[in-house]
Amino acid sequence: MPTARDRVRFGANYTPSQGWFHSWLDLRVDDARRDFEDLASIGLDHVRVFPLWPVIQPNRGLIRQRSIDDLTALIDAAAEFGLDVAVDLLQGHLSSHDFLPSWITTWHRASLFTDPAAREGIADYAAAVSRAVAARPNVFAITLGNEVNNLWPSNPTTLEQSHQWASDLVDVVRANAPDVLALHSLYDDAWYSPDHPFSPVSATDLGDLTTVHSWVFNGVSAIDGPLGPATTSHAAYLVELADAMAPDPSRRVWLQEVGAPLPDVPVAAAADFVERTVASVIDHPGLFGITWWCSHDVDRTLLDFPEREYDLGLFTTEHQAKPLALALADCIAAQREGVEPQPGRVAIVAAHDLRTDLHRRAKVAPGSAFHERWVTASSERSAAIVLPALADDTQHLAARSITRVADELSPGRALP
Amino acid sequence: MPTARDRVRFGANYTPSQGWFHSWLDLRVDDARRDFEDLASIGLDHVRVFPLWPVIQPNRGLIRQRSIDDLTALIDAAAEFGLDVAVDLLQGHLSSHDFLPSWITTWHRASLFTDPAAREGIADYAAAVSRAVAARPNVFAITLGNEVNNLWPSNPTTLEQSHQWASDLVDVVRANAPDVLALHSLYDDAWYSPDHPFSPVSATDLGDLTTVHSWVFNGVSAIDGPLGPATTSHAAYLVELADAMAPDPSRRVWLQEVGAPLPDVPVAAAADFVERTVASVIDHPGLFGITWWCSHDVDRTLLDFPEREYDLGLFTTEHQAKPLALALADCIAAQREGVEPQPGRVAIVAAHDLRTDLHRRAKVAPGSAFHERWVTASSERSAAIVLPALADDTQHLAARSITRVADELSPGRALP
Repeated sequence: MPTARDRVRFGANYTPSQGWFHSWLDLRVDDARRDFEDLASIGLDHVRVFPLWPVIQPNRGLIRQRSIDDLTALIDAAAEFGLDVAVDLLQGHLSSHDFLPSWITTWHRASLFTDPAAREGIADYAAAVSRAVAARPNVFAITLGNEVNNLWPSNPTTLEQSHQWASDLVDVVRANAPDVLALHSLYDDAWYSPDHPFSPVSATDLGDLTTVHSWVFNGVSAIDGPLGPATTSHAAYLVELADAMAPDPSRRVWLQEVGAPLPDVPVAAAADFVERTVASVIDHPGLFGITWWCSHDVDRTLLDFPEREYDLGLFTTEHQAKPLALALADCIAAQREGVEPQPGRVAIVAAHDLRTDLHRRAKVAPGSAFHERWVTASSERSAAIVLPALADDTQHLAARSITRVADELSPGRALP
Repeated sequence: MPTARDRVRFGANYTPSQGWFHSWLDLRVDDARRDFEDLASIGLDHVRVFPLWPVIQPNRGLIRQRSIDDLTALIDAAAEFGLDVAVDLLQGHLSSHDFLPSWITTWHRASLFTDPAAREGIADYAAAVSRAVAARPNVFAITLGNEVNNLWPSNPTTLEQSHQWASDLVDVVRANAPDVLALHSLYDDAWYSPDHPFSPVSATDLGDLTTVHSWVFNGVSAIDGPLGPATTSHAAYLVELADAMAPDPSRRVWLQEVGAPLPDVPVAAAADFVERTVASVIDHPGLFGITWWCSHDVDRTLLDFPEREYDLGLFTTEHQAKPLALALADCIAAQREGVEPQPGRVAIVAAHDLRTDLHRRAKVAPGSAFHERWVTASSERSAAIVLPALADDTQHLAARSITRVADELSPGRALP
């Protein structure tokens, strides 16, 4: 863990204000420029962008150059506003909608995680898009896809298969984009759901850093939302779980998605929710960045979204900054000169090996005794988490700036 | 049944030579012009065209005007070559590939045949596209979609539900395009498969004429293909079944799809297959037209098509007319002045009521005793088929130009 670090990055998951992601079907770069102007105005330094897989690769043998050109044009437009770009490859899943090409659905039904031909096609796609976007100087990361575990159960897989799938694709990204971060992303059932066929180990072991996505409708808002400690620290909790489980103690964690969904976080509470959420993670020594979901609301003329997806934007579709955007701007301004990472951290010991005992994942889920213990231990500053086998490993603890380990029986013991 | 009739129409199902239907994603009208030039050169008078539903309506609330403009631009380009146009709405299914919007798949899984919101969305789509294309003077027909029964079983339905679905959509088309033919299309499991939840009664009762699609890989080519009587008369057999079952004896039948698939019809036999197939139906008094599947081969760089789908074109992707195109051109030239419909037809009596006894559909399928009897009775000219209850209905028989009814026991008896 570096004692000094780069400034924490702040960004937005880019949801086009006009036509949502269907705007890829006829990209108007000026519309994107107008959106990027909004995002730059509050001090964000990056956007995460989401091409639609079946638009770029409608047939396994056809990767449409024009759509790749659209993607790079969008990236270049972001650069005009000083915004760096992270690209997600396989969308795949966006706000409850799956975009899957005809060559893996219905009459061609094949699991994209396991079918050899599908995997070959996806590898071709990942290679082509990675190559194209990595040539842009403002691209800093490529993620395999947005929460690809949402593509299950429609695409069957097992823990082993989905890990291998992601591992192989990370290799494809690295081979074709050696100078950018190669990343994997999963929503939090990977961390909390015992039977879920995607492992948090894939998140902490594959790629160049760990990404976490924090959504308070997963249980924490029912505990004490909208502004209670379990709710506003959930992002930090995931960051700590990720940090605890990484084999490399210096591995960074990117809070790649966090948002303030209705009705869990009412409009009146949104600004405070932003402030407290950011405060709970900002001084984590390994934090890479915070990327809000999402940039712009979804136009109400678009139907069939879950209600909570419409109003997640920092900005309205009419480019009005919402209170939470101003709160986020304040957070960014407050740490412009950098934030000193926590120098001496307190850790609590997990009750089981989070890496191996995946059938016990529910024991760390929101509302579990462990989660409750962590929230209590984090009342002042977010507590670190340490795996049982590493609780006495002074080298590991030092590498993570942990100076004190608390266990369930004692309030904490100082390290020798 | 009119004693004189319009010339039988000849056309092609238009499969773009460049990029197949993915070319809708960035339509180049000049590519279409080049394709239409091919088709006009062999004397065809129309094309049947297939927009991709999710490209036009990616969200239930979003009907993209630019894609509708692309469709009308294609229609106008066809007009430049003297080609009239039939438009299919819901693709839906094309050559084993289903194109379904994200709002009815996976997390939004709903049967497009039965879900009220999905049906409402489809009605909006059908209305918008019908209105737009009906304004073009060379559009003569709108079909609900290409073989929509291929969208089952991924979209569950029942006989009653799929009939009602089609009936409601025919009404939408008629309301928005009152001057063109409103049509329904089904592949032949509707006629032959006892448990199939789409009825031939939907084909013969809904819309302005009955469409049939003849594919010899359904069983007939195994009987005596490629040039035996069962194989080369299969199109005529479907036309006769459709004619027999229509409540309106003057209802026309459009052989909307017929093709010469490999390996059932080897290249060397294709020209003869065309000639014999056309000969078997051309003098049917109710025949509306013959539309070959398809205009152009599928480029081999496109993957995952069933092998037989690649080489069905009248033309190669390089615009070379194949032997079957020349054979079709000869057929067209031979009947340029019109064909005298059969004046006095022989009919055989169906063994059961084809409209009501749908559980007996296998009894008229390729290879059934009835089919064999019909092929034998059609050795010189395609025999008509008459339902048992109508075998003595002289008015019905006269309306269908039937002058003799044969039954199984006697070689035929003249009508009084």
